[in-house]
Formats: sequence, structure tokens, C-alpha cells
Amino acid sequence: MGATGAVGQEFLRILEERNFPISELRLLASVRSAGKTMRFRGADLPVQELKHDSFSGLDLVLASAGGKISKEFAPSAVKAGAVVVDNTSYFRMHEDVPLVIPEINPEDIATHKGIIANPNCSTIIMAVPVFPLYQRFGIRRIVAATYQAASGAGAVAMDELTAETQAAISGKPFTRTVIPHPYAFNLFPHNSPMTENGYCEEEIKMVKETRKIFHDEKIRITATCVRVPVLRAHSEALNVEFEKDVSVSEVYSILARSPGVQIMEDRPNNRWPMPLDASGKDPVLVGRIRKDLSQPNTLDLWVVGDQIRKGAALNAVQIAERLFP
Amino acid sequence: MGATGAVGQEFLRILEERNFPISELRLLASVRSAGKTMRFRGADLPVQELKHDSFSGLDLVLASAGGKISKEFAPSAVKAGAVVVDNTSYFRMHEDVPLVIPEINPEDIATHKGIIANPNCSTIIMAVPVFPLYQRFGIRRIVAATYQAASGAGAVAMDELTAETQAAISGKPFTRTVIPHPYAFNLFPHNSPMTENGYCEEEIKMVKETRKIFHDEKIRITATCVRVPVLRAHSEALNVEFEKDVSVSEVYSILARSPGVQIMEDRPNNRWPMPLDASGKDPVLVGRIRKDLSQPNTLDLWVVGDQIRKGAALNAVQIAERLFP
Repeated sequence: MGATGAVGQEFLRILEERNFPISELRLLASVRSAGKTMRFRGADLPVQELKHDSFSGLDLVLASAGGKISKEFAPSAVKAGAVVVDNTSYFRMHEDVPLVIPEINPEDIATHKGIIANPNCSTIIMAVPVFPLYQRFGIRRIVAATYQAASGAGAVAMDELTAETQAAISGKPFTRTVIPHPYAFNLFPHNSPMTENGYCEEEIKMVKETRKIFHDEKIRITATCVRVPVLRAHSEALNVEFEKDVSVSEVYSILARSPGVQIMEDRPNNRWPMPLDASGKDPVLVGRIRKDLSQPNTLDLWVVGDQIRKGAALNAVQIAERLFP
Repeated sequence: MGATGAVGQEFLRILEERNFPISELRLLASVRSAGKTMRFRGADLPVQELKHDSFSGLDLVLASAGGKISKEFAPSAVKAGAVVVDNTSYFRMHEDVPLVIPEINPEDIATHKGIIANPNCSTIIMAVPVFPLYQRFGIRRIVAATYQAASGAGAVAMDELTAETQAAISGKPFTRTVIPHPYAFNLFPHNSPMTENGYCEEEIKMVKETRKIFHDEKIRITATCVRVPVLRAHSEALNVEFEKDVSVSEVYSILARSPGVQIMEDRPNNRWPMPLDASGKDPVLVGRIRKDLSQPNTLDLWVVGDQIRKGAALNAVQIAERLFP
């Protein structure tokens, strides 16, 4: 569901790369995309219009067509006997729906009742490197600031960033249709809807989803989410206060053996993870690991992850791999 | 000193705008720029090569040619009888040199012995809106994450960001000469030299300079500094823990009457300060003012300021205005 979007396209690449066992692949999208073809394992597959009867005979539905579409169509897929791994936010906080990062809470997959939710990209990119430290040292509080790429708003946003930037360089006028604010050489606080308490929804997702995934309602998190003029891969500055004494050398050794994490530090050359390093890559890159000088038992970390891969399509396929090993 | 750089050019604009009393303006720069002319108050003034005997008869030297140049030439300017307002980092932490933001510690100007230092741009943009809150509520700790524009590395960096982005869009190769990392649609942790403790110098400046300006060695600050592909104006996500109970409504009323600060919030339209809003403007823009849900007496703030103006040239001219009222 949502085969032609940025995440949908990435699904095809990842299913190919990881040799996911597939006897029939059905590409579902809106009526606008129906009739197009997409390349998969050497064949051109037709894109079909998503309908309530699209799911018969399917074991698995990977959904990335937006919350409204998942709300409307996921129940039909479940009724038809499929398990839905949903990339939208719609079911994430539902009590009956497990919210899963396979490196963290794979055991929750077994509790599903037809739908498994994939967390928000900013949540995943924070949680993957932070969870192994949480297990060892406990966490009191996280202060996060994000640097989110255009890809989080889809392929159309990536195209618009490029086109608007080209227009800005050429001094030509440009009419935006996707991104709500000037984006060429500019940035803005995340444009998700504001909530009563002054946080935007993206920030609240990082708080609530992390608690659900970690099964710990006591972790205190605050976040400021910002869209930056980067095409792909989100970065985050994380300040993490631990419950126990934390040693930087132990943090390095824990992260070095943590799944889905790659330490990338070249201190002599002052070279740390960047969005371009993470683009198209699986692991969340971690760097600038240092003791916070302002407070005991606190670390500053810099993490960068591909928002379309581990932040969306890859994480969902990893869930699917556990469903169909 | 450094008349032809990004800050030097801004000096001329600001001196004109503010009608600063000038009988003779001497434009000093490296031998490369000598012979060029720059427009000021309707005349084309020649750029002269900076030499140790360049300062005779001058009352004031505005310096923005880099730390090495200030180290070498500021003493000559002082010997010639001028007061140097120095935009470089070289003298900032010297005991005998006041470090001044006129909205915060104007009284320190009177203690100068020939040199007054202008703080680092990221420090100024944080300190201007934070100081009035510090006065009212006291501050325990600040966690800062910066989103710094190309302008912080000078006019050449701004040109290189534009050229590299153009090349990236056109798919053409590009050779960087100023910025050390890929910058088109990319970002990277601040490239100032690393210190022993894992912080980069830019981050340490925010810690130490703020303490010196506030005359309070107890304020605890941690920062992660990042360069983003924005041409001009720095943004910062600030998490500020206060000593006293803080009320959001009182914060609004304090900031509304604080000099150099402008609240910019349009919550119904989800519209907050952006670098393009601050570019070419004097005040530091503040938005996303909210109680941190993770901890009592703590606020999240989003601040944006023109790095070349209030972050450099404007602040220095404001100091000069107090020297020569």
C-alpha cells in the first residue's frame, strides 16, 4: 500500500536486497498511479488501484500511504487474512497494536492482532542507539533536537526542495505546493500539527512512542523537531541523563556491539556522521560521544540515520522477516 | 580591519543605517584587497593594506579579520590611541578584556584597557533572549543545539555553499576550497577544532563566554554545534532549566519588553522564526516558547538571529555607540 511513494520505492529495493521470500507481490497505490509499472527482481510489475478487495490471498501488507489510508484499508487487509506492518502513525499508540523496533522489542511482534506499527522515523533513529545504553545504565531524561530531511515529507518534498533551491540560485520565482515554508537555504520548526502544550505532534511522537517501545512510562523526554534543507537522512543531537554512573569507554564498547548501530568517529580529522554518510545505509551512525560537562552521568551524542530505510522501510521489512522467517 | 569580509561589509551597512558619527573611515584589509573600493555614504572609499602604522589618528578600530590578525595588529591600534572592538575570538577570554553584549553587560565597557571583545555569534544569539529570563528566574542549566549558517565561515563559505549546491543539482563535480565537508543538502557537526573533552571550540565558547558575560561561573551549559546548509542566520534549540518556578505567561511578558528580542509566533498557522525571517534584521527572534514536559521549571525555546548582524557587526557597533555616544 503506497508502492509509488518514497518509502514504497525503498520497500522494493530492500525486499530485493534482503531476498525476502515472495511468491506474489501486489503493488497497491492510489488511482493516480494505477497502470504505472515498477521494476522488481527483473520484472515490470503493474501498479494496481488500492481497493478494499485488493488483499485476498496476501500474507503480508506493507503500508506507507498515509494514516487515513491505513485507517480505512488496514482492517480490510486483516479481514482478508494478512498481517499489516503499518508505517503510518495511525495505529501506533493503539493499545492492541504492538509498536516495534526489531533490535529493541521483537518479542512484542507475537502479540499482534493483525496490525503491527512501525514507529516514527525520528523515534527509531533515537531509540536504536539509545536502547542498549538504557539497558545498561537506565535513563532519567533525554533532551533531543532534530535535523530532519525533506524525505520525511515524501518524494514530492525532496523534489520540491531541489526545484526551489534551483530557483533560488537562479533568482527565479517559485511556487511551493508541498512544503509550507521557504525551504531553499532555510529551515523551520517541524510543520506537524501543534498540540495544546506547545509541542508539535512529531515531538510528542518521540516522547510517547519511545515509552511504548521501551515499555517504560517513566523515561522523561523533551524534543525540538526541525526540518532542515537536507534531502535524505535525519540527524539528532541527543543529551541523555542516565540513572547510573556512565563511563564513556563502556558506552563505546556497548555501542560497538549493538545491532543496527555503527560508531563513526574520526577525531583527528574532525569527521563525524553526516546525512550523506547515512543515506542509503542500514545502521544508525553515532558520533561525538562525550561526557556532558554540565551535569554528572550525562552524555551528548550525535546520531544520523536514513529516514527512508531504518526510519521506515527497512524497519518494517525487519518486522516482516520475523513474522515470516 | 577586515573591511571586505562578510562582517566587514555588514559594518559599512550598519554604520550608515545607524548614522554613526564618522569624520574619517579607513578601510583596512589584506594586501589582496588593497586597491579595491567600497561604497560608503555615497562615496567610493579605497581599501588600504593593513599595516602596523595604519592606525594613527583613529579613535576606533572595528576588527573582523580573524584571530591571528587581531593578535598581531590590535596592540598597534591601541598604542596609536584607538579603542579596538574585536570580533575575533582571540581576546575574548583574556582577563583584561571585557566581553560585551550591550543589552546584557554594558557596564563592562568602561573597564576596557584598549580592547573590547565581541562574543561569538552563537553565544550572542543564545544570551540575548536568555539573559532577561536569567535575571528573573535564575538558570541552573542550558542544553543547546545549534543550526549554524554558512555565513559563520565568511562570505567565501556562503558563495561556496551556493556553488556546490548548484553543482549538486546539475550533477556536476565540485571542488571545495573553504568548507571541509560536503555541504550541498548536507550538514555536519561544527568544524572548529576539537578539544580534549570531546567538545569542539565553538561549543566551549558558548559555555565560557556566556559565563563571562553573565558574570556567573555557575551556569551549567552543554552545547552541540552543527553547520546546516543555510546561507545566513543561526538557529538554536535551547532547553533552559531555571532555579525558580517559571511561568510561561511571565516569560512572554519579559521577552516582549526585552531589548534586542522579538517574539515571533503564529501558532494557528504553525509559523515560527526561520533564518530567512532573521536575515538582515537586528533582533533575535524567539518562538516555540513552551514548558518542558520532562522536568519542572524548564523551558524549550527556539531562537534565530542574524549571525552577521547581531551575531557580529551590529553588536560591535552597539558597543562602539556606547564608547562614542
